Amino acid sequence: MSLFQVQDPASEARVRKTLANQQAMTTMGISLAKIEPGVVELQMPYDERFSQQNGFLHGGVVSAGLDTACGLASYTLMPANADVLTVEFKINLLAPAKGQMFRFVGSVVKPGRTLVVSEGRAFASDGGNEKMIATMSATMMTMVSRS
Amino acid sequence: MSLFQVQDPASEARVRKTLANQQAMTTMGISLAKIEPGVVELQMPYDERFSQQNGFLHGGVVSAGLDTACGLASYTLMPANADVLTVEFKINLLAPAKGQMFRFVGSVVKPGRTLVVSEGRAFASDGGNEKMIATMSATMMTMVSRS
Amino acid sequence: MSLFQVQDPASEARVRKTLANQQAMTTMGISLAKIEPGVVELQMPYDERFSQQNGFLHGGVVSAGLDTACGLASYTLMPANADVLTVEFKINLLAPAKGQMFRFVGSVVKPGRTLVVSEGRAFASDGGNEKMIATMSATMMTMVSRS
Amino acid sequence: MSLFQVQDPASEARVRKTLANQQAMTTMGISLAKIEPGVVELQMPYDERFSQQNGFLHGGVVSAGLDTACGLASYTLMPANADVLTVEFKINLLAPAKGQMFRFVGSVVKPGRTLVVSEGRAFASDGGNEKMIATMSATMMTMVSRS
Repeated sequence: MSLFQVQDPASEARVRKTLANQQAMTTMGISLAKIEPGVVELQMPYDERFSQQNGFLHGGVVSAGLDTACGLASYTLMPANADVLTVEFKINLLAPAKGQMFRFVGSVVKPGRTLVVSEGRAFASDGGNEKMIATMSATMMTMVSRS
Repeated sequence: MSLFQVQDPASEARVRKTLANQQAMTTMGISLAKIEPGVVELQMPYDERFSQQNGFLHGGVVSAGLDTACGLASYTLMPANADVLTVEFKINLLAPAKGQMFRFVGSVVKPGRTLVVSEGRAFASDGGNEKMIATMSATMMTMVSRS
Repeated sequence: MSLFQVQDPASEARVRKTLANQQAMTTMGISLAKIEPGVVELQMPYDERFSQQNGFLHGGVVSAGLDTACGLASYTLMPANADVLTVEFKINLLAPAKGQMFRFVGSVVKPGRTLVVSEGRAFASDGGNEKMIATMSATMMTMVSRS
Repeated sequence: MSLFQVQDPASEARVRKTLANQQAMTTMGISLAKIEPGVVELQMPYDERFSQQNGFLHGGVVSAGLDTACGLASYTLMPANADVLTVEFKINLLAPAKGQMFRFVGSVVKPGRTLVVSEGRAFASDGGNEKMIATMSATMMTMVSRS
């Protein structure tokens, strides 16, 4: 049972397809872990190719994961003919992205016809212990195609 | 002639080395275009492997480029024994990241002993025309190693 | 029972005193509703003198209330000789601030020696129904006096 | 000569009227100093009634001034029948708001049919010296009335 009303019954398939079409996510090894109305969770195993100067996951990659999680969470609530666009986001990096596995969770805070506000939380699993490493707040826009 | 005072005469070499150690930047094809006290410009040719669902550069990759530009711009003004850490940033995506070449410019707004505030601008060159596609505001922290 | 460890046993009295010294809060009619380690809730009755062009509470006043709630929530966890300073915050205004009574709740997300990250939620009560009208994410800094 | 095209020839009068209808601004002593297409500057003399615990201008009041400056700057470029709404803003407080007079300057970065992105800078004049004390980035929304 979800807090939010889905407009498009095929919403989940649409989200999966959009994610599959984001080559950046495939290249970074970011994949879908969970999806429900208003919530999307992505996961990513550590990959040295996306590290910063101390060997941890680059903050920009954490941002990319959270941005996509927030965007897709918002997208679950949009109508069938819509595309989703990031208007803006803010991220606070709470701790170094140190670990073997990362989770990016996006949740809708306030749906809307034009704008959807969502929040994200990133977690790192390091030797079995999971820790919150970042928080995001984001505004997404519904783009309805005219065709 | 710069607006800012450099504390470390070897600051430029230090910035170059830190960037070279960020494997995420190498993997994304992001390289140094310009460096001066308080300002760092990075560039990136379009790479389909880092695209979103419409074939444009992924917003998360634009964020990663701007985050690094803002971080390194701040880092030019830090002391010799310091590391730089992103505390937070906010990005506004103004237009789709459509083009063949991208520039990420980070500039210090307010240096400080512990915190440095900077701003970023991302530009896309599409068929010879350049357009601003994103703005960032960021807070960076000076981490002084105790060894 | 709280999630957070208090460093200063007189933390609550210190928070009350700081709030009492913020004339801006007294002038706006914003007062303390609840305080516990890492959480501060403020309240404000509607006041036409602080309205915007449509007669609702001005967004800047909502920001001021949330900024103070986040700052004081962070301040509950700081040491006895510290002052608190807002580094930055971001606010999303979700709905018009329409109502007779407003609540501003600040909660610490991640305490730290130098920086404390917190989140805020603002609510409006309108004819008995309460609605979330804004979310904030904020970074606060511990300023330790040297005297 | 301005960078931006005005849609409504009576835009300036409309901005002045909206500001006059914001009682919060009158109460805080914030008034119009300058207006041109895409730029609005407000000013405020120091008022102890809006101070924080150290006697400086409260950060929330600085936010309120910048929010209004950014909102009105965006509003200069909106159509005649539109209202302006703050979607979100982020503020970095660079220095204590210490001084006798304050300026809040809002400038449009990117106009748009639905969303307008703007930036703000706040300055404090203290004994004849002016200093930048805050930067803002904001998203404003055009609300077109249907009547």
